[in-house]
Amino acid sequence: MAVEERPKGGLRADARRNRAAIVAATIETLRRTPEASMIDIAAAARVGRMTLYGHFPTRAELLEAALTHALERGEQTLGALEPEGDPRAALVQLVESSWQLVDDSRALLVAAQKELAPARIRELHVRSEARVRELLGRGQREGVFRADLPVSWLLTVTHLVMHGAADEIAAGRLDPGDASRVIRETLLGAFTTGNAA
Amino acid sequence: MAVEERPKGGLRADARRNRAAIVAATIETLRRTPEASMIDIAAAARVGRMTLYGHFPTRAELLEAALTHALERGEQTLGALEPEGDPRAALVQLVESSWQLVDDSRALLVAAQKELAPARIRELHVRSEARVRELLGRGQREGVFRADLPVSWLLTVTHLVMHGAADEIAAGRLDPGDASRVIRETLLGAFTTGNAA
Repeated sequence: MAVEERPKGGLRADARRNRAAIVAATIETLRRTPEASMIDIAAAARVGRMTLYGHFPTRAELLEAALTHALERGEQTLGALEPEGDPRAALVQLVESSWQLVDDSRALLVAAQKELAPARIRELHVRSEARVRELLGRGQREGVFRADLPVSWLLTVTHLVMHGAADEIAAGRLDPGDASRVIRETLLGAFTTGNAA
Repeated sequence: MAVEERPKGGLRADARRNRAAIVAATIETLRRTPEASMIDIAAAARVGRMTLYGHFPTRAELLEAALTHALERGEQTLGALEPEGDPRAALVQLVESSWQLVDDSRALLVAAQKELAPARIRELHVRSEARVRELLGRGQREGVFRADLPVSWLLTVTHLVMHGAADEIAAGRLDPGDASRVIRETLLGAFTTGNAA
């Protein structure tokens, strides 16, 4: 069912501008109105419906493009961190910065989680996951994170806990102001071997 | 987009038999062939395609019916457990029995996770979750499970970890024989306060 898409570089300048405006409008509009429709987003982007559907025939494709854009922006922030020193402190810093990014695009993520398969959302995170994976492996080698669970599993749990928190906030079951603490405590509890400070 | 469905009780006897055969065939066929198509399932159920699509117009509806059926069967198993005594041991027992059920319908769950929204899958688990919720609350009151995280969050983590394990096995990143241990260690690590045995 994949629609063949011209590479971004192959679009004319006005089409590139429209595409960028639509993606930006998707992120902004969902932040204010999590249930915003494709038509609401076209209006916010100041493009016609035909233009919107020309770039993104389905809501799933639009949400995937917006999530990819948000992740690329996030990469710039996370890439500036230097996860050295105590792996626990580095994990807390990395997870808290990541959560600020998730929280900022929370409505987008929740909308994407309704439209895209979990495995696809996970694939889109491959770059941001590499950084966490490296830190988890170092923490295991230094004896700070438990080594009786595979690194790939610790990474999965990190992903699930952060995305689960976004869903729980959307469902009204988790206080947004408490989410960062809940994520941190859950991951440190699950990953450390009882020698945590 | 919901298709109006006649209540089960309103179906004629042969239609009820066909429906039950389709649901049973879905579970069996996916167990052997996780990528089985609607047509494969119709053949296994010995019904025509028109009959299959008459009962379940979409793959999502078929998978939801099959998952609901598997959960109802699972409820009978879990309802026979008596989660008394040490909350840690009771949680381990409940989670290991639940995992056996998940593991038995793992391909169905992974298929459902591709077609149904996470929130919908969560809703289908409402009955089985009540039992875990009660145990988690008791463990908190007895000071065995950490009380600085909401029960609703511990329940969410339990759900995410078990379903995440099914996805990780399907992706080839987790050894099926190790999954039960990994789930148990992750949840006990996250939920206990360091006074675990």
